[in-house]
Amino acid sequence: MRRFRMALAGGGTGSFIGPVHVMAARLDGAIDLVAGAFSSNPERAAEAGRRFGVAPDRAYRNFREMLEGEALRSDRADFVTIATPNSLHFEMARDALRAGFDVISDKPATATLEQVIDLQSEIEKSQRLYVLTHTYTGYPLVREARELCRSGAIGVIRKVVVEYSQGWLSGPVELSGNRQAAWRTDPSKAGAGGCVGDIGVHAFNLVEYVSGLKISALSAMVSKIVERRELDDDCNVLFRLSNDAPGVLHSSQVAIGESNRLELRIYGSKGSLIWNQETPNSLIIHWSDKPTEVRYAGSGYLGESAKRATRLPSGHPEGYIEAFANIYREIVEVLVDRAGGVSNAWRDTLCGIDEGVRGMRFIAQVLESSNRSAWVELN
Amino acid sequence: MRRFRMALAGGGTGSFIGPVHVMAARLDGAIDLVAGAFSSNPERAAEAGRRFGVAPDRAYRNFREMLEGEALRSDRADFVTIATPNSLHFEMARDALRAGFDVISDKPATATLEQVIDLQSEIEKSQRLYVLTHTYTGYPLVREARELCRSGAIGVIRKVVVEYSQGWLSGPVELSGNRQAAWRTDPSKAGAGGCVGDIGVHAFNLVEYVSGLKISALSAMVSKIVERRELDDDCNVLFRLSNDAPGVLHSSQVAIGESNRLELRIYGSKGSLIWNQETPNSLIIHWSDKPTEVRYAGSGYLGESAKRATRLPSGHPEGYIEAFANIYREIVEVLVDRAGGVSNAWRDTLCGIDEGVRGMRFIAQVLESSNRSAWVELN
Amino acid sequence: MRRFRMALAGGGTGSFIGPVHVMAARLDGAIDLVAGAFSSNPERAAEAGRRFGVAPDRAYRNFREMLEGEALRSDRADFVTIATPNSLHFEMARDALRAGFDVISDKPATATLEQVIDLQSEIEKSQRLYVLTHTYTGYPLVREARELCRSGAIGVIRKVVVEYSQGWLSGPVELSGNRQAAWRTDPSKAGAGGCVGDIGVHAFNLVEYVSGLKISALSAMVSKIVERRELDDDCNVLFRLSNDAPGVLHSSQVAIGESNRLELRIYGSKGSLIWNQETPNSLIIHWSDKPTEVRYAGSGYLGESAKRATRLPSGHPEGYIEAFANIYREIVEVLVDRAGGVSNAWRDTLCGIDEGVRGMRFIAQVLESSNRSAWVELN
Amino acid sequence: MRRFRMALAGGGTGSFIGPVHVMAARLDGAIDLVAGAFSSNPERAAEAGRRFGVAPDRAYRNFREMLEGEALRSDRADFVTIATPNSLHFEMARDALRAGFDVISDKPATATLEQVIDLQSEIEKSQRLYVLTHTYTGYPLVREARELCRSGAIGVIRKVVVEYSQGWLSGPVELSGNRQAAWRTDPSKAGAGGCVGDIGVHAFNLVEYVSGLKISALSAMVSKIVERRELDDDCNVLFRLSNDAPGVLHSSQVAIGESNRLELRIYGSKGSLIWNQETPNSLIIHWSDKPTEVRYAGSGYLGESAKRATRLPSGHPEGYIEAFANIYREIVEVLVDRAGGVSNAWRDTLCGIDEGVRGMRFIAQVLESSNRSAWVELN
Repeated sequence: MRRFRMALAGGGTGSFIGPVHVMAARLDGAIDLVAGAFSSNPERAAEAGRRFGVAPDRAYRNFREMLEGEALRSDRADFVTIATPNSLHFEMARDALRAGFDVISDKPATATLEQVIDLQSEIEKSQRLYVLTHTYTGYPLVREARELCRSGAIGVIRKVVVEYSQGWLSGPVELSGNRQAAWRTDPSKAGAGGCVGDIGVHAFNLVEYVSGLKISALSAMVSKIVERRELDDDCNVLFRLSNDAPGVLHSSQVAIGESNRLELRIYGSKGSLIWNQETPNSLIIHWSDKPTEVRYAGSGYLGESAKRATRLPSGHPEGYIEAFANIYREIVEVLVDRAGGVSNAWRDTLCGIDEGVRGMRFIAQVLESSNRSAWVELN
Repeated sequence: MRRFRMALAGGGTGSFIGPVHVMAARLDGAIDLVAGAFSSNPERAAEAGRRFGVAPDRAYRNFREMLEGEALRSDRADFVTIATPNSLHFEMARDALRAGFDVISDKPATATLEQVIDLQSEIEKSQRLYVLTHTYTGYPLVREARELCRSGAIGVIRKVVVEYSQGWLSGPVELSGNRQAAWRTDPSKAGAGGCVGDIGVHAFNLVEYVSGLKISALSAMVSKIVERRELDDDCNVLFRLSNDAPGVLHSSQVAIGESNRLELRIYGSKGSLIWNQETPNSLIIHWSDKPTEVRYAGSGYLGESAKRATRLPSGHPEGYIEAFANIYREIVEVLVDRAGGVSNAWRDTLCGIDEGVRGMRFIAQVLESSNRSAWVELN
Repeated sequence: MRRFRMALAGGGTGSFIGPVHVMAARLDGAIDLVAGAFSSNPERAAEAGRRFGVAPDRAYRNFREMLEGEALRSDRADFVTIATPNSLHFEMARDALRAGFDVISDKPATATLEQVIDLQSEIEKSQRLYVLTHTYTGYPLVREARELCRSGAIGVIRKVVVEYSQGWLSGPVELSGNRQAAWRTDPSKAGAGGCVGDIGVHAFNLVEYVSGLKISALSAMVSKIVERRELDDDCNVLFRLSNDAPGVLHSSQVAIGESNRLELRIYGSKGSLIWNQETPNSLIIHWSDKPTEVRYAGSGYLGESAKRATRLPSGHPEGYIEAFANIYREIVEVLVDRAGGVSNAWRDTLCGIDEGVRGMRFIAQVLESSNRSAWVELN
Repeated sequence: MRRFRMALAGGGTGSFIGPVHVMAARLDGAIDLVAGAFSSNPERAAEAGRRFGVAPDRAYRNFREMLEGEALRSDRADFVTIATPNSLHFEMARDALRAGFDVISDKPATATLEQVIDLQSEIEKSQRLYVLTHTYTGYPLVREARELCRSGAIGVIRKVVVEYSQGWLSGPVELSGNRQAAWRTDPSKAGAGGCVGDIGVHAFNLVEYVSGLKISALSAMVSKIVERRELDDDCNVLFRLSNDAPGVLHSSQVAIGESNRLELRIYGSKGSLIWNQETPNSLIIHWSDKPTEVRYAGSGYLGESAKRATRLPSGHPEGYIEAFANIYREIVEVLVDRAGGVSNAWRDTLCGIDEGVRGMRFIAQVLESSNRSAWVELN
């Protein structure tokens, strides 16, 4: 099996998503973390290097040095994963592409809509691989749901309800040393969107990913619930899909008791789908005039795309890291194809810059709609 | 125990809610159904009379005859329950009040906003009892949730999510003999609201009933999903509460697989409440930094208002009829008080004309907002 | 509709099951409670009479007087419902039969195996109706499960797991005024079985009722968990069915947090059934190599026996009282048949003296097996 | 961070648990798989070596060659993981210990009770580390439950119900090429226990691990449900704990629709615990006279042992591989301690040979009891 080398931007002590990228990349044994710009703080960077088992000379002091240092090595990293606060995504991705690295980036793609448009050109010019890790697309039953929408099994999509509720920002934790909260509530690091940019965009992505339809218009209401917070921590949206079906997206970071409740419901003319990230190994399917059906991950009756995203038999729960690892598994497939000479190899189950642009437009239009208390289009 | 006599408008063969009123009224043994105008079809009326065990001479041919016939009897009905299509509510209620009967009415109070304003005056003039049977307010754990909001236990209310999803109108069943569907999708019988008037208004009522707050502004999107349907069958609303907290109300009658999913979630600054009508005997309470709590109907730790609304020990499920019967139980208490000389006796856990007016305003403003694609106020 | 007159033994203040019989009998409007021997305490008896709306002269001082008093009336009760502690069941049933009344009895049929054999002869001689109210057989989805077993839909039954767990006797509440606990833990009132006689026998009945098979041998372990308790409060059984399939029955009254968890699972060679009394409106059906199925009460796809046991559309929960009322509904059907001249009219969905005998044998053999620490047969 | 080198016995194509060991060992980045005796079939062995990224010269042809080959290397494996059919466990573990390797073994420890006694002496003599990977002990909420039992929080343990139900052997799949089924139903490979040895022993282990009590006596009924199967595929047990509390263990491999339902319930005098492996990230705790509590993995209110076994915040599901990885994480801690000179370093949250002996005794006594249809002791 061909193994690939990963360099990581972010992931210093206190990081949430950096270590997730590393665990996910490692899980299937095809990727080794070899280098990192783990933190702007040299001690944190060195500590993370030790923790991740990266050679001291490849635990770089900053991203620029990492690109330069790696570029000189014969065993240089194959790709760079960007797992930093949003404000750094654009420059890092651009510079890595220009330096000839494939790029795996956390969402949202950039901090602003302008940046993502620029990034799109950079990617085109570079001919490098660019993958946006919308984690939840990696779950096997999200893949199953997607197939059920695309095959027409549930008929014409008539309504979508999606929610993403969390409660961890219900108090002003950004003021008391919570690093995750601090950057996410700081416009200079997170961009213009708070809740909408951090989690609303995941819900948005999931709607389009699974349904195969686009959201074409929306009316949004964002709120800053916790006093003195500078970015929205609650975001609710009415929308229309491209086929005119209505939809509702509601998300919050102040919903006490909700941990990470991302739930998608798609109601069609023949049947309906319900999937909840906190119980990710089952998919509820309602049929008109027939009993409700529950499909379980790891079962023989599932479609191929779900099966490929599962490691264990039914009843052996797989979770968030495994979903993430499914994305890395497809990245490896694409890297193998490209290494084998296939130009522009890709998997259409992956998200890339197109989804990045959609996400940034969504964030921008949600804020626009909310500011103007009006419906707006989403092109 | 004092027993009361009930006359029923509606409840003919094929009726859903008429028999529910009868079963609910009977459950605790304090009310006897003695008369009815069960159907405009004489055969159906007679059949219903036999089925309900009503004397043939009190199974009247129409509502007017019932009022006149009962007025002459020494054992006349104590109150009239109106369980007909919406378009008849106003005239029936007005006439019954004028004839000196107390009135129990199904929701919505009337078919139009104008009517409900008129009805409000009629009630004032009559000094009779008027109760609006918002069924779901009768569940013990709805009462518990209400107490938790009012006592401040969950802190300041910060967000509300309420849904009411059904799937029974996902096909054009009104065209194939479903009487329930036929009148609910007919503007001349249901009024201007379809989904919003039939179930959206229940969700709206539950929000205000439990939270103790009012909805002050809203942005709505109603849809007619099934071809050629004349009234909305899907209705979604963003709203602001009187304390500026955001909220989402989504409802549908074309959501295949949803039976009668009325779910209320109230997120406060100290804790959150989740209640689902399809599993009505438990209430989930989330607390900040403490494990989630589940309270069960029939348990010793519940508050008085929940306890009073329960007949059985924990684990012996009570349901929709029992919830309805709890409303009748309080009606009986009020009737006893009035019979005992207390003028304007009341229970503030009951809904009356004020809730009727709120509901009709809600329906009107939802349609207005949706037509204009704009936020509107709700006074 | 023909209406029937009920006389009740038991149901005084503090009674649990007496009022349930009354509410269940009333629900469908075909039965009136006209007389009672509600309590051996005259004040309690009178109070219950007022509460139930029974004429003072028919709120009798004791059971004997009730039989005699009713026998003299032209509007005498049609049947007697026995809802007293177990020790009184036998004599009351026998005397009522001898006095020419039909008998509806709470389970277990009697306090001892000898009594139930005698009662069986009495019933035969009397030619009166005798129904044993095993409440849980009245749930619509229990009826559906029964049909699925009988039709062969789930294949050959291979294993049964049934449990009935409660926690209300986890402390010595019988010593502090809990009347329900007091008689159930007193051998002179409950008979030889505590947990096994009070709830184990329900679980046993449900197995045979649904599966259509008999339990033929068992190994039991009963325990007295709470100090100084005189009867078992925990009872667990391994068993073999008549087709040699293995089974497990476990029950407890000291399982803190369990309210009334009666759960039946039947595993067949083609599929499996799972039903839980605390969520009675759904039935889980697993199929080999197909997605799991969930059937909801009130749905069009259900079989006739389930449909007949439902009053409301799907999503409108029906519960314990409605299940009980389904038994009374069938009793009314039988009474109508008998009134119409059909001798020995019956419904095979009802339980009668045969189930009573089986239950008493079960209790006796469980205690025998546990005492001897050995497997025993159950004939 | 110190990294350790792993050699694997088993894990060839078609293996279930071999790859799980590898993924679990890799997840936290502290262990590298460097060698293997993956299969007795040379092609399968080579293929597995490639798949796992093991150097060709360390993908050995058999276990003996692996021990010899590794012994000669300066970068020799630090430990050997045994993930083969049960019949090979004993010899492999013994030989690896004698060759100076630490041993990580899948359960059950050996194929017979005699072997495990011998193995116990070998381990003592060797002074090497021996860990038995009872996967389910690695879940964070199993650790929380264990603490709650040990701290006395739920009072005296009064009853235990444990089940482990699967359905994958409901047909004769061992006859049609299912390699997992083939060895598990073959006495020459699995040992004397089928269901009891494969999964019953997990349930047994979980009871003793969490409760801190021992099972002291039992009455068992094992069955061979599928025709011509040579080992039991269903196993049910009544038992007494060392404090005389009753318990029930039921397990099956023919329960259609059950995937991997391992559920433990411990009822105490103050509270109760319920944990289900298929929803492993929540723990239900019932309290006497207080609302039920639900604790979620990743929450701040959990105890230290649960926190240490979690990688992600609440709501980000971790599953089977992560639980397994928690065991490897503790193994690494012990290896670090030993490398640092601590002799006999250990973590009491790990299972070792004592649990191996208990498990083998349990299997033997279950079969004995079932054969004799009698209660037996378990010392």
